[in-house]
Amino acid sequence: MQKIGILGGGQLGRMLLQNAANYHVTTYVLESGKNPPASSLCHYFIEGDIKDYETVYAFGKLVDTLTIEIENVNLEALFKLEEEGLKIFPRPRALKIIKDKGLQKEFYKQHHIPTSEFYLIEHKYELNSYLNFLPLAQKLRNGGYDGKGVEILRDQTDFTKAFDAPCVVEKLVAIQKEISVIVAKNKSGDTAVYPPVEMVFDPRYNLVDYLLSPAQISEEQTALSKQIALDVMNALDSPGIFAVEMFIDVEGNILVNETAPRAHNSGHQSIEGNYCSQYEMQMRILQNLPLGDTSVIQPSLMLNLIGEPNHSGAVKYKGLNQVLKMSGVYVHLYGKHETKPGRKMGHVTITGKDTNELLEKSQLIKQQLKVVS
Amino acid sequence: MQKIGILGGGQLGRMLLQNAANYHVTTYVLESGKNPPASSLCHYFIEGDIKDYETVYAFGKLVDTLTIEIENVNLEALFKLEEEGLKIFPRPRALKIIKDKGLQKEFYKQHHIPTSEFYLIEHKYELNSYLNFLPLAQKLRNGGYDGKGVEILRDQTDFTKAFDAPCVVEKLVAIQKEISVIVAKNKSGDTAVYPPVEMVFDPRYNLVDYLLSPAQISEEQTALSKQIALDVMNALDSPGIFAVEMFIDVEGNILVNETAPRAHNSGHQSIEGNYCSQYEMQMRILQNLPLGDTSVIQPSLMLNLIGEPNHSGAVKYKGLNQVLKMSGVYVHLYGKHETKPGRKMGHVTITGKDTNELLEKSQLIKQQLKVVS
Repeated sequence: MQKIGILGGGQLGRMLLQNAANYHVTTYVLESGKNPPASSLCHYFIEGDIKDYETVYAFGKLVDTLTIEIENVNLEALFKLEEEGLKIFPRPRALKIIKDKGLQKEFYKQHHIPTSEFYLIEHKYELNSYLNFLPLAQKLRNGGYDGKGVEILRDQTDFTKAFDAPCVVEKLVAIQKEISVIVAKNKSGDTAVYPPVEMVFDPRYNLVDYLLSPAQISEEQTALSKQIALDVMNALDSPGIFAVEMFIDVEGNILVNETAPRAHNSGHQSIEGNYCSQYEMQMRILQNLPLGDTSVIQPSLMLNLIGEPNHSGAVKYKGLNQVLKMSGVYVHLYGKHETKPGRKMGHVTITGKDTNELLEKSQLIKQQLKVVS
Repeated sequence: MQKIGILGGGQLGRMLLQNAANYHVTTYVLESGKNPPASSLCHYFIEGDIKDYETVYAFGKLVDTLTIEIENVNLEALFKLEEEGLKIFPRPRALKIIKDKGLQKEFYKQHHIPTSEFYLIEHKYELNSYLNFLPLAQKLRNGGYDGKGVEILRDQTDFTKAFDAPCVVEKLVAIQKEISVIVAKNKSGDTAVYPPVEMVFDPRYNLVDYLLSPAQISEEQTALSKQIALDVMNALDSPGIFAVEMFIDVEGNILVNETAPRAHNSGHQSIEGNYCSQYEMQMRILQNLPLGDTSVIQPSLMLNLIGEPNHSGAVKYKGLNQVLKMSGVYVHLYGKHETKPGRKMGHVTITGKDTNELLEKSQLIKQQLKVVS
């Protein structure tokens, strides 16, 4: 049996493992903490720090193929393991580019991928040189995730909340819509592109509130966004699954915001909404099997279940009974023991005939289903 | 978190656990052997004999709710555990009736459920009293599974292969079609009925070769078979999920063949083909949540992957590459290490627009995908 290792033990690993159980593989997970979401669904759970060189290196030595479910892993160990022959998807060199949001932006520029204007800074005081560039988005080059590590600076008074660390400062895009296109490549070089999804953000936490699949955009925008996502993946030159997040600005231009080198929140709906889910796709990539059909089975809406404000501690899910009475509603709870405000605790996918039906159901679900302590 | 225990660690447990990971529960599996299919997907795997009183009793004491994925478990322990307050779905009294195929047939008769004529015998020599009853099906009252424990006796020369043990002898039905209806009930008394599926058997192993969902039968037959399945469940008077297998004879009569008090091979297609899969349904029952929508999303065909004749030993799956190139094809491998002729090693579900498309694809898959050693 092929031995597959996953760096990271969160919900993306958990959902990957739910799918891995359809294959003849042995699974290994590395993550710190006693019982992260993925720990109960693998053959071997190893408790350890994914950012530590020795730990990641030793873990890599246990498996035949390695993948990630979070970017924030020890890169040096991955380069060393790859040099020694381990199959790692995504390849460390692609991960290196993406992991550092500064390198990532420079990579887009170098490969003529449309993206917003930007500068790289090392310290907060440098912001004073970019007053003409306001309003801007300041993003930590390293370590940001789930909406953390990003500040919107509209004017100088916002500088108080600015990061004092190596950052990208990006010209704020006048956003009409945010979309995401998931693309996949296996070792044989086959590629697959998912239909774009449309993301609506929760401004409280800068997290996806809900997404609509497929995105309600023009055919031209659909085709162009898919081509851009393919271009990004081809330039990264690595097997793997990638989520390319894009802005459509008020003038209709498509600009790449950022890329994740892994399964992504913007692909959760694919479990029920598309013929081949992003996790099934990742499993096929890890085994160098033919890629799956990315088509939509039915339109769907994916709603993140986020810890309510003012609730911290052992989690409870309020309103599950009402929600499960609805048809075409799929609840995914991530098995996290503790909730806190803004923490991603699960998601709900709704399938339906059209957008109105999806939005109506999602409104009801939002009113009823609450993550509390 | 609710603690859910599963007696048995085979593929049905494995698929239940894939679904259980969508809920906030802790899972326990009891099964003998080091690595049965379900052992890597639960929080706690306990190696032990599900037929042993002390082992099952001790296991039951670890959990809040208990279920089964195979009938062949220690009943006395379940009665004792239920008496002491443990929630067990199906209830032990329903399991007791079903576990013994003699009691099961008597139960149908008692509740006016249509079923074939039968007699109970203790020894092989008694067959000589039923020569007028030939051809007949002889079924072991206890311990049969997956097509084992059944012999078709067409005439006296077949008596050499007859069982010498407590058996049911049933008048052989002139079968037009075999169908199955899965029904579900939660503790609150809500019920749900799946559309009937049509089963085609592999005569080599007396196992389901493939099934079609929904069954191609008349509206009247659909309605009647659903009503019969509900009648069986209501007479059993137990929460749980039940597969009621039925014959449609050449005259169009519907007769109950047998009932399984659990998720069943004839419901595997529901994972992709129906809004609420049988495993999702079972998870809802175990948590006393509202039952799901049993409707068909798309017609589907489920093909069992059975170990090829003359192949025993470490398993290999030949032809996976060709099969995964098809759209709407879902492969489920059960993680069993060893194959042997006739062993259920996995299944493939195909979704499609109509029966012709499904049958065509299934022919291709059968030719290509082989379970060998």
